[in-house]
Amino acid sequence: MNKNSSNIMALAPNTSNKRETVCIFGTGDFGRALGHKMIQSGYPIVFGSRSTQKSSLIPNDAEVLSHAEAARKAAIIIIAIQRQHYNFLTPLAEILHGKVLVDISNNLKINQYPESNAEYLAQLVPGAKVVKAFNTVSAWALQSGTLDASRQVFVCGDDMEAKQMVMDIVRALGLTPLDQGSLLAAQEIENYPLQLFPMWKFPILLSLGLTAFFFFYCLTRDIIYPYVYENEDFSFFIAISIPNRICPILALILLALVYLPGVLAAIIQLYRGTKYRRFPDWLDKWMLCRKQLGLVALAFASLHVLYTLVIPIRSFVRWRISSLTVSQALNNKTEPLNNTYAWLSDSYLALGILGFFLFVLLGITSLPSVSNNVNWREFRFVQSKLGYLTLVLCTAHTLVYGGNRFLSPSSYRWYLPNAYMLSLIVPCIVLVVKFVLVFPCLDKPLTQIRQGWERNPKYSE
Amino acid sequence: MNKNSSNIMALAPNTSNKRETVCIFGTGDFGRALGHKMIQSGYPIVFGSRSTQKSSLIPNDAEVLSHAEAARKAAIIIIAIQRQHYNFLTPLAEILHGKVLVDISNNLKINQYPESNAEYLAQLVPGAKVVKAFNTVSAWALQSGTLDASRQVFVCGDDMEAKQMVMDIVRALGLTPLDQGSLLAAQEIENYPLQLFPMWKFPILLSLGLTAFFFFYCLTRDIIYPYVYENEDFSFFIAISIPNRICPILALILLALVYLPGVLAAIIQLYRGTKYRRFPDWLDKWMLCRKQLGLVALAFASLHVLYTLVIPIRSFVRWRISSLTVSQALNNKTEPLNNTYAWLSDSYLALGILGFFLFVLLGITSLPSVSNNVNWREFRFVQSKLGYLTLVLCTAHTLVYGGNRFLSPSSYRWYLPNAYMLSLIVPCIVLVVKFVLVFPCLDKPLTQIRQGWERNPKYSE
Amino acid sequence: MNKNSSNIMALAPNTSNKRETVCIFGTGDFGRALGHKMIQSGYPIVFGSRSTQKSSLIPNDAEVLSHAEAARKAAIIIIAIQRQHYNFLTPLAEILHGKVLVDISNNLKINQYPESNAEYLAQLVPGAKVVKAFNTVSAWALQSGTLDASRQVFVCGDDMEAKQMVMDIVRALGLTPLDQGSLLAAQEIENYPLQLFPMWKFPILLSLGLTAFFFFYCLTRDIIYPYVYENEDFSFFIAISIPNRICPILALILLALVYLPGVLAAIIQLYRGTKYRRFPDWLDKWMLCRKQLGLVALAFASLHVLYTLVIPIRSFVRWRISSLTVSQALNNKTEPLNNTYAWLSDSYLALGILGFFLFVLLGITSLPSVSNNVNWREFRFVQSKLGYLTLVLCTAHTLVYGGNRFLSPSSYRWYLPNAYMLSLIVPCIVLVVKFVLVFPCLDKPLTQIRQGWERNPKYSE
Repeated sequence: MNKNSSNIMALAPNTSNKRETVCIFGTGDFGRALGHKMIQSGYPIVFGSRSTQKSSLIPNDAEVLSHAEAARKAAIIIIAIQRQHYNFLTPLAEILHGKVLVDISNNLKINQYPESNAEYLAQLVPGAKVVKAFNTVSAWALQSGTLDASRQVFVCGDDMEAKQMVMDIVRALGLTPLDQGSLLAAQEIENYPLQLFPMWKFPILLSLGLTAFFFFYCLTRDIIYPYVYENEDFSFFIAISIPNRICPILALILLALVYLPGVLAAIIQLYRGTKYRRFPDWLDKWMLCRKQLGLVALAFASLHVLYTLVIPIRSFVRWRISSLTVSQALNNKTEPLNNTYAWLSDSYLALGILGFFLFVLLGITSLPSVSNNVNWREFRFVQSKLGYLTLVLCTAHTLVYGGNRFLSPSSYRWYLPNAYMLSLIVPCIVLVVKFVLVFPCLDKPLTQIRQGWERNPKYSE
Repeated sequence: MNKNSSNIMALAPNTSNKRETVCIFGTGDFGRALGHKMIQSGYPIVFGSRSTQKSSLIPNDAEVLSHAEAARKAAIIIIAIQRQHYNFLTPLAEILHGKVLVDISNNLKINQYPESNAEYLAQLVPGAKVVKAFNTVSAWALQSGTLDASRQVFVCGDDMEAKQMVMDIVRALGLTPLDQGSLLAAQEIENYPLQLFPMWKFPILLSLGLTAFFFFYCLTRDIIYPYVYENEDFSFFIAISIPNRICPILALILLALVYLPGVLAAIIQLYRGTKYRRFPDWLDKWMLCRKQLGLVALAFASLHVLYTLVIPIRSFVRWRISSLTVSQALNNKTEPLNNTYAWLSDSYLALGILGFFLFVLLGITSLPSVSNNVNWREFRFVQSKLGYLTLVLCTAHTLVYGGNRFLSPSSYRWYLPNAYMLSLIVPCIVLVVKFVLVFPCLDKPLTQIRQGWERNPKYSE
Repeated sequence: MNKNSSNIMALAPNTSNKRETVCIFGTGDFGRALGHKMIQSGYPIVFGSRSTQKSSLIPNDAEVLSHAEAARKAAIIIIAIQRQHYNFLTPLAEILHGKVLVDISNNLKINQYPESNAEYLAQLVPGAKVVKAFNTVSAWALQSGTLDASRQVFVCGDDMEAKQMVMDIVRALGLTPLDQGSLLAAQEIENYPLQLFPMWKFPILLSLGLTAFFFFYCLTRDIIYPYVYENEDFSFFIAISIPNRICPILALILLALVYLPGVLAAIIQLYRGTKYRRFPDWLDKWMLCRKQLGLVALAFASLHVLYTLVIPIRSFVRWRISSLTVSQALNNKTEPLNNTYAWLSDSYLALGILGFFLFVLLGITSLPSVSNNVNWREFRFVQSKLGYLTLVLCTAHTLVYGGNRFLSPSSYRWYLPNAYMLSLIVPCIVLVVKFVLVFPCLDKPLTQIRQGWERNPKYSE
């Protein structure tokens, strides 16, 4: 027993109601790591184990006793054992009666069992107060102290007092407890660490689908068409040219899809004349993943910027420019500066730069630590006002890029329009509808509805 | 009543001092959202309303009673009603005596009323303990659970115990309470959600003013002058060339303005011989918005980088280079490499890259979540040492860019020097003064003064 | 006494067990700043000072008394005095008996004294309960309210109750207390504010060493060699060309070094047949600074991107391209497009863009506020799966860049291979070993070992 622990022990009598002994069943990785961390925070720890022989891995300051003996020493028992072995607790039911059992287990698959592990534990030991906690924390993080991933510990349980005791322990370990309600929430808490970016699934699937569609579209127009008609091999366009068509298209479409549900919601509210009816489910889900959609759009926009900036380094581009210059020199003619074309080229670049700049700003403000430091008015200002400005700039960037090519028949190959024209459909719809909604005759009733006014009130107060 | 609530109710007897019943006056959006969230966290909720008819929007687990009945059931009453209707509380004064009233209201304008809503409430119901809280949280965020904007809940009130009770509720909801002191702070707390980036106002106004000035300055020199004297139309410079002159100038000036107040403060302290006298008000305010100034400067620097990197893609630039090459070919001459010019060009680019790189690093460390993870010594090292290095690199970048053009008379059009020369004034002053202050004969007394030494001590310890 | 304080005082009787009077010894900067902040949070403050004459700098609401008188008024005494003057406390030992003494002092050097200041204080006043706290907070930050650097307050002490009281004060001030255990931790807590990026020391020293090596390597090959053999002066390569060789090399090597320890650990575990033996110390340390190594690598990669994107603006590059074009024009020949070369050039650029994009994504997810919002499965997915994909893309980028130059004898100058070839050694080793480890015959036992299985079990459960 080292100096540290003796200090703690010496103080035990007069601080008995501050740091109570905690019992941990199971001396596996997580049990040991948790025990170690709790001893550091001043909790006397006793391990309950099948074999009471003390291994060198158990922290020095902790005792190892039989399950029954250990359980008798503490009011809180942490069950650091896998669900399959829970049935060994049945014979201990009497000793565990009235104690707080902390279920920290995880499953290998989402919804692996019909009921959550914590509820199963509560059924096995009906007299105990079961609290679910700590399942989102990793043993490695506890041991190394580098809590890079979540500091948040979800806690749930039916007994308020028991939950409070566990939340105090969580706080003492330097972690943040989050009360999730009754033990019914355990299922969700147990599924949490098994999730893999659930909010990102829809945006990523959507963008994969769109990417595939536009890839084959551009492949047809830009590689197969010239190969068939002009017998030219531009297959190397697959590396940069075609990605640099797909990325801006996806960025623009996804950005517009961020603002489409808001516009749809406004139309629905105006039509219904009340905000007190739920939106259809798909719209609700869509609205909740707007942030993810926007960030995927930002990713595509960033790739577009990188692909565009390397253009002058590409050997194909250097060859083309050099060929042009050589042929001019050989023909002994110098072209004058086309002022219109200089205007078009510079303004579409400028619009793109400003649009991308605002887009990055939106991305930065969506970082949790930044958005935590702004109030709602500021958050809405950035995400709505600046967001629409970004959409306007990016749409204008695409329109000016097109210039007067819309009308030129040479840009229709096999009757397929240029891919960027397709990308303009959704943003233009969003902007037009939004523009209509800003008119006072629509904006005024909408504001009233959003403040609680109803055209046909059905509910009291 | 669903399973969830029955669990909670069953435990009510033995946990009565853990989660007390909370009453909410008003069944509007925010009242309902808060009630819903509190039920999830295990609080029994009772609504007080004019009409006790239960609407389908009220959470199932909550009762709806008359105001008087509801108030009798709870020690804490949340007033989810607009200030204009507060006077209905006067007849309830007797029932509300000794209860905790939580004022969650917001106004529509900053300083709309002479006294804060919470103080008005305290005057209306003198026997109650009024606590201000929750006004910074949005109903939508509470309902959807996506607390993207602030998790912080400002709490103030004159009664410590009442405040503590409210702060416990805040914590139970997974939010972070911040004690702001007595009820006098309510005015400020009520103004907070109405603010729109107050710290950013000065930096943004300043940069708008400077942008306008330099825009017209460059317009005169770069577009009007050649149009008048050479009859050349370079109006398309407005899109990229002129912004790309303004951005670096503003970035450099604003960056220098970040470090100027520190230098001024040092001079004032040296002159006064003490640090125990307040700086003039304007200097205090300036020092508090240095972070915002720096971030605006970083925004301009980023735009400058983007504008610079698209240069080779601009059709004007391509035309100019191609014209030059063609004329060289037609004149049948190849110019040898100018080594000096290669040195100048490469080193100003390299200085700019390194300066921008450090600038971005400074920006990243000013992110709240990053700066929370460094200690003061590290924070000062980055913001002061690396900051000055950034300023030195960026100033050098501009100086080398100028090269020997300073002396060339052709760069003065209508006696106006190149715009970038103007941008060098502030940074050069800051760097020279800072350089002087680093000399031991000034640095030593300054350090002593900052450690508390006084030339003419006037105050006792 | 202003309105604010009178409010607090009026409530003092019925809230006596909520906000107890706190005594501060010493009226220096930090004592005053802390006193000010605590008064704002509702604590009655009394200062203990040698001279009881009240200076204008002391907050109005605070009393200034002699040390003995002040100490009698409070249960908690904050010692805002330097360690050298602690001995004045010895005569007060009787009054201080049983009180909570909060040591907030810092030293000027790491491990300046054999024992920590807090332990020294505990020896001087054996009857008091010493708690270490607040030493990481700056006076300036407390006063200005801009707690940009850490909100975390490390607290340690042998008496649990005393520690709890101090942690309650910390929370009331809007800061986050972190319990660090017994007073033995004070040494480490006192060293913390003196640290300067201790985790970054190894990655930065390593990259400085590698930078120096590769700088002289490239200097020899790219500047001295052509000067000696071709008498050409390419000294300006020092500004951009050589940095742009060094940066990608370092980025690739450091990125590979992030994944090398994981591969080594797997080999060690496979060899030992157990995970229950500690890794060698150097491997442990290496694994703990992987994040820093990765971020330094990202910094080099970002510089490489910037250096690459300015290539077409460089005057040397413009001169070279223009010379080539002119000579083509003069020789009256136009080269056809080399399709293979277009493929190579485009695909190495595309690989580089994608690799850099994923690298930035890895960097963003390592921001504390982002990694706090993902669970362990997601964190591991990003850092391991996406990390290896980044390494594969960056290695492929370098390999394709090399193209078929590996075999060309002209790329060996003085028998020195191109620098990028050296950079491929470590990443190729990592990728090959990782590829071998993925085979089922090795992956299966490794997974078992990591789940706790042992080839030669030596420890009981």
